[in-house]
Amino acid sequence: MAVPPSTYPRCLLPLFLGLFQGALLLFFALFITYDEPSAQAKDTNLVANQVYSTFPFFQDIQVMLVVGLGLLLTFLPRYGFSALTHNFLLLNFSMQWALVLQGLLHHFHHGQIHLDLHKLLISEFAAVTALISVGAILGRASPCQLLVVATCEIPIYLASEWVIVTWLGVLDVGGTITIHVFSCYFGLGVSKGLFRATQQPLHPKETPTPSSDLVSLVGTLILWVFWPSFVAVLCQPGDAQHRAILNTLLAMSASAITTVVASSLLERDRKLSPGHLQNGSLAGGVAIGVVADMAMPPVAALALGSLSAMVCVLGFRFLTPLLRKKLTLHDQCGIHNLHGLPGILGAAASVVAVLVVSKDTSGSQPSQLSPAGGNASEAVEGQQGGRGVGGQALCQAAGLAVAVGASLLAGLLTGLALRLPCLARPPERLCFDDSLYFKIQDLAESPGPDSSVEEGALALKEQV
Amino acid sequence: MAVPPSTYPRCLLPLFLGLFQGALLLFFALFITYDEPSAQAKDTNLVANQVYSTFPFFQDIQVMLVVGLGLLLTFLPRYGFSALTHNFLLLNFSMQWALVLQGLLHHFHHGQIHLDLHKLLISEFAAVTALISVGAILGRASPCQLLVVATCEIPIYLASEWVIVTWLGVLDVGGTITIHVFSCYFGLGVSKGLFRATQQPLHPKETPTPSSDLVSLVGTLILWVFWPSFVAVLCQPGDAQHRAILNTLLAMSASAITTVVASSLLERDRKLSPGHLQNGSLAGGVAIGVVADMAMPPVAALALGSLSAMVCVLGFRFLTPLLRKKLTLHDQCGIHNLHGLPGILGAAASVVAVLVVSKDTSGSQPSQLSPAGGNASEAVEGQQGGRGVGGQALCQAAGLAVAVGASLLAGLLTGLALRLPCLARPPERLCFDDSLYFKIQDLAESPGPDSSVEEGALALKEQV
Amino acid sequence: MAVPPSTYPRCLLPLFLGLFQGALLLFFALFITYDEPSAQAKDTNLVANQVYSTFPFFQDIQVMLVVGLGLLLTFLPRYGFSALTHNFLLLNFSMQWALVLQGLLHHFHHGQIHLDLHKLLISEFAAVTALISVGAILGRASPCQLLVVATCEIPIYLASEWVIVTWLGVLDVGGTITIHVFSCYFGLGVSKGLFRATQQPLHPKETPTPSSDLVSLVGTLILWVFWPSFVAVLCQPGDAQHRAILNTLLAMSASAITTVVASSLLERDRKLSPGHLQNGSLAGGVAIGVVADMAMPPVAALALGSLSAMVCVLGFRFLTPLLRKKLTLHDQCGIHNLHGLPGILGAAASVVAVLVVSKDTSGSQPSQLSPAGGNASEAVEGQQGGRGVGGQALCQAAGLAVAVGASLLAGLLTGLALRLPCLARPPERLCFDDSLYFKIQDLAESPGPDSSVEEGALALKEQV
Repeated sequence: MAVPPSTYPRCLLPLFLGLFQGALLLFFALFITYDEPSAQAKDTNLVANQVYSTFPFFQDIQVMLVVGLGLLLTFLPRYGFSALTHNFLLLNFSMQWALVLQGLLHHFHHGQIHLDLHKLLISEFAAVTALISVGAILGRASPCQLLVVATCEIPIYLASEWVIVTWLGVLDVGGTITIHVFSCYFGLGVSKGLFRATQQPLHPKETPTPSSDLVSLVGTLILWVFWPSFVAVLCQPGDAQHRAILNTLLAMSASAITTVVASSLLERDRKLSPGHLQNGSLAGGVAIGVVADMAMPPVAALALGSLSAMVCVLGFRFLTPLLRKKLTLHDQCGIHNLHGLPGILGAAASVVAVLVVSKDTSGSQPSQLSPAGGNASEAVEGQQGGRGVGGQALCQAAGLAVAVGASLLAGLLTGLALRLPCLARPPERLCFDDSLYFKIQDLAESPGPDSSVEEGALALKEQV
Repeated sequence: MAVPPSTYPRCLLPLFLGLFQGALLLFFALFITYDEPSAQAKDTNLVANQVYSTFPFFQDIQVMLVVGLGLLLTFLPRYGFSALTHNFLLLNFSMQWALVLQGLLHHFHHGQIHLDLHKLLISEFAAVTALISVGAILGRASPCQLLVVATCEIPIYLASEWVIVTWLGVLDVGGTITIHVFSCYFGLGVSKGLFRATQQPLHPKETPTPSSDLVSLVGTLILWVFWPSFVAVLCQPGDAQHRAILNTLLAMSASAITTVVASSLLERDRKLSPGHLQNGSLAGGVAIGVVADMAMPPVAALALGSLSAMVCVLGFRFLTPLLRKKLTLHDQCGIHNLHGLPGILGAAASVVAVLVVSKDTSGSQPSQLSPAGGNASEAVEGQQGGRGVGGQALCQAAGLAVAVGASLLAGLLTGLALRLPCLARPPERLCFDDSLYFKIQDLAESPGPDSSVEEGALALKEQV
Repeated sequence: MAVPPSTYPRCLLPLFLGLFQGALLLFFALFITYDEPSAQAKDTNLVANQVYSTFPFFQDIQVMLVVGLGLLLTFLPRYGFSALTHNFLLLNFSMQWALVLQGLLHHFHHGQIHLDLHKLLISEFAAVTALISVGAILGRASPCQLLVVATCEIPIYLASEWVIVTWLGVLDVGGTITIHVFSCYFGLGVSKGLFRATQQPLHPKETPTPSSDLVSLVGTLILWVFWPSFVAVLCQPGDAQHRAILNTLLAMSASAITTVVASSLLERDRKLSPGHLQNGSLAGGVAIGVVADMAMPPVAALALGSLSAMVCVLGFRFLTPLLRKKLTLHDQCGIHNLHGLPGILGAAASVVAVLVVSKDTSGSQPSQLSPAGGNASEAVEGQQGGRGVGGQALCQAAGLAVAVGASLLAGLLTGLALRLPCLARPPERLCFDDSLYFKIQDLAESPGPDSSVEEGALALKEQV
């Protein structure tokens, strides 16, 4: 599959993106418009307040995805520029693609689609799935392959999200099941489909350096700080949102400390592993999403954060090597440990929570992930009212099953599609290397001892 | 002009800044005060709401200017500390200088000047012009020269902004014409005046390294994320602000993708150029400012973002080398490609927009860049009402002409002033080098192989 | 005290943290709950508005502490990962510990403790004291020793804060006296108690490199940008908060410029010292906290910012070497110059301010640092009303004396406790070295020239 660098096909990426941008312009010209300006001062105030209440959350999430996640992925020392750029490119592509699909799927029968900040936010959430999934094949896939992954994943995400949230009525305000679990198993499916049974050898450029590990940790910290905004942005304003913020803060704080405990206990010389820290500290945020706005006691958030950090570190230590050995499953960034295991843990916690928490309070937490907005949440409440606590618990479990099953299957097929000859994989020698995609000076050519020669020449020139 | 490092005059900077700080204190003591505290609870609520609605935007802009722009300028591998510090110093100096000038110019006849967050924001916008302009001479000018540029540029900016926005009634909510176009041509004028017809040779320290390119890209991403706040902060709250945010998001998203397409099509081996990415992704934000709050369809924002990224990349590829060769015009950061060309494109788009968009909606978008606030916007509406759609289109074009003409002339004169013997330029050998301004350990002296010797000595000491 | 690396006791950290997490879970399970959900729509709106008005400030402060302060501490070139991680760990531990103690101390007699964002914020402020104090011993203390410092410091901080704010009625909205001065002298006490009369030799890994200085400066800039949120978050909404934001912005802007002046005047070759810039730019924010919301003229904020930057730079240049020589006082990060001297200056300014500013305006600035909220502020106003302006000035001075005295004594005892044999200090050879705590590839082993050998082997493999 790999091709020599000289024949590596490079015109595919601009072709694909250029065609997509053209189609996007056409689609927007035909179908997308803004709301009519409000006629009355009262409505203007309403719009202004909506902007002030949503926009700071939205900006926090943008920082997370563009800067935080981008930096987290730069742990590969010679692939930082690619990781940052591909993440950025993929976010924009997936967001636009999700806007198009949402327009087509949900709103087409209303004629013109009215764009607003909430719809952009929903598309951003859809784009997150692609960003997470490609973590499994980071560094070994070309940007074109990443775009193909996003192209396949976004529609399947939208469908699965509709089934899980709107049809099954699963409560999942922070996207634990619909986003994290879904995208994790989709990514693992892609990895399996792409690499099949071939063991990927350890690449010399794969090992982080101290400075790449440091930059990656900064990315983790940015994600850690802004995670509460991600979980709480779609909550009902008021108590539910307040609770979601507090629960997320508690869970992430417990995660941070438990990661240190677990990592140092598991390593033989009691030194902390940078990879554990970079991922384990965030595990609590993944797990808490599904229960963040439920009326559970604060101790539950702490416990869930602690547990999820533990399973994340255990996953890195034992499960990832096992999966690589037994199933030849390649997971470059360990997305199974950060998104899969804590996501499943969170889903299990949500089953317990809906069984324990009394019905009257859970009724006030409609999930708003569905772009249908108000209608969806009313439907959820209706179903809940009809089905009782046990039924809701079953639904949460069913939602998890749907997310895992649909994503694994779809991911596998997507991974097989990535093997198409036209989508050439980067040659093994140039994996994890920025110089395949960017005009970046090679490290060996960087101004080293010989720069003094040039400087001397310059100094001479000045004296003349 | 260049002097040997031993005689490089270093007491000018503290002298200049010290005198300025003294004068500033005197000016503030005499003329500046705060508003009287509100007597009534209703007013207190009003002030609180204004703080909550403006302050998050203000903080976003501070992050952009201090961290984002600072990091973007660190692409020079041995000049990162200077780039970051000079940008920071210049921002603070220009902001204070703009506060003083605004006080003197606009409010003097009212006696005491009442400072508030809005006035600080307006001064911050004025300071942005200086930060952009000095990009043309980055690395080859001393900090004193940068301060002289700001000293000359801020009053001319305030005058030109008054002519363009208040007198001509140009609509430019995001500062595309008044800030970006103005500061670009001012900077090019300064560069021409300073270097005149001497070709600047390629300096060995001018070439980015992989790690300096990476840090610079992080700066771009921070600017990219927070750009909507910059464009929308001065919009009318409600629909206009909502629209400005959405349009900016769409334009920047289109820019990001088009930059990748354009850059890889233009380079012979289809590799992306880091410089294109660092600048092209932001071009959409520059261009959209002037039309962001107008009632145009979303597709226009996408198209404008795409087009501006294209002209930005084309500018880097063809125009910059041409200008350097034919006009011996030196543009270190490529400000003409990021601020000049997309700014002109945006101005042209605004002409089209005011011709196409019906009058009733454009009436609801008064530009608030003028510190005079309410009065200015009423004046604009009055003029518009009187002059009709065609007249407004003419005004937009006239505003662009004023911005280009005034800035080029004033910049040229400022550049000539920078050649004064007392403002010594850094010696060519020490251009692009932090060690001229900072007590920073030279790279050659950094702890390399010999650090192990010291460590060994320490280890011995402990055993004894 | 120092032990050879092979026998360095590593199981203490997970043991300590594990036990703490267990106790925390138990405490939360028994005593901590959330507020009952609001029954009425009006209350829901109130909660929503409180979230929207506090949460953006809270996020800004999180960015400051986790990212900004973390990066600022990475000026030690081979200790960046440790600095960032230990800061992060310490923040989380201290915040949780403060939550527990506050629960026990202030609310125990009310039974169940209702957690909300305000209580988390108060705990975060308490945690800041530990983060500042450990700056005095950064790099020479083990993470366990840092946790012991936090364990001792948080309760003493809470007690001293109660004495200063609630009992003495000191006005200190930005925590200048209660947080900065207190934590500085606590840290110096710890350093003295830990190192006693032994001079710490200059370590070869202690000297910053250009790139570590650059990253540290980025941390400074992040702190600089978000500092107004830290000072203003607990202000009375409305005029007082608006004034606090403006005063902080002015003070920090003056600090930035004065630092450049002072640093270049003090160094013999007029080059700026990175350390001065990294700290002096923030000195104004430390000093302004205690007077930020008082009704003083803007020029006072500028002057205070300028002065505090001056004393900070002077402190680095003259006082720190003096203290090291005469008192063998070790202050690794120069916390005395950034937090101690500007804090004392701010306290002195507050004495002047309460004497000059008329009583009617100062009455509207109750300090809200005390978790008791409304009751405390009423008490303050009552006391003030009773004691008059002169009494309040005396109180401010008394508050400063309490903060310095209590912290020095308590810090000294804590420092002596750190000498317990079970809390082994890192061996001198491995001070300032990430490799003692983290599984990080040593710089010497990083992929250098020999990586090309591996690449050649890979290339061969592909051709076969």
